[in-house]
Amino acid sequence: MKAKEQEEAPVCQHFQRAAELLGKRWNTQIIRALLSGASRFTDVRDAVPSLSDALLSDRLKELEAEGILTRDVTPSTPVRIDYRLTEKGLDLTGAITELAGWAERWAAADA
Amino acid sequence: MKAKEQEEAPVCQHFQRAAELLGKRWNTQIIRALLSGASRFTDVRDAVPSLSDALLSDRLKELEAEGILTRDVTPSTPVRIDYRLTEKGLDLTGAITELAGWAERWAAADA
Repeated sequence: MKAKEQEEAPVCQHFQRAAELLGKRWNTQIIRALLSGASRFTDVRDAVPSLSDALLSDRLKELEAEGILTRDVTPSTPVRIDYRLTEKGLDLTGAITELAGWAERWAAADA
Repeated sequence: MKAKEQEEAPVCQHFQRAAELLGKRWNTQIIRALLSGASRFTDVRDAVPSLSDALLSDRLKELEAEGILTRDVTPSTPVRIDYRLTEKGLDLTGAITELAGWAERWAAADA
């Protein structure tokens, strides 16, 4: 048990990664937009006003790589692209709801 | 509604801050150690093996500044210091439990 990786239990590592995923700026706002029914790039962008197209594009790719969402391409003219949460992404609802509740309760207390 | 700050609802800002707090490396492991009954510096350090004393000290100060924990000093000889979660810190239990559950479910699926 010398290496740093071995000192942490696998669940701790996954927990840390999950917390970092939600803590990374914009990610939860993007996920919440998708949970609220947005599926097109422009819908998500409109739901998160201060996010640039380039950054949204990067974040969507990262979240796709993490298995949180899929990018569904419909070969119409023009091509239609829909972003949808996977089962893994939808399963974040509980954690996001709890964290949003905490933030709301203590935002008022700290104000 | 031109400034970036004004474009985000207050709850979104607080949510983002809460997510960043949990996403910052070591914070949730420190909070979980305190939830599990640790209160002394050395107890927390032992519960999070790869964390250095200097970094633990920094994180405890940050969490105290955020109102997540208090540093209780008992003027004995030697002085005894106990770190305890505040009501705000204890109220993170739900969010941490949900996120840990998600991490555990999807750690297995991703392995």
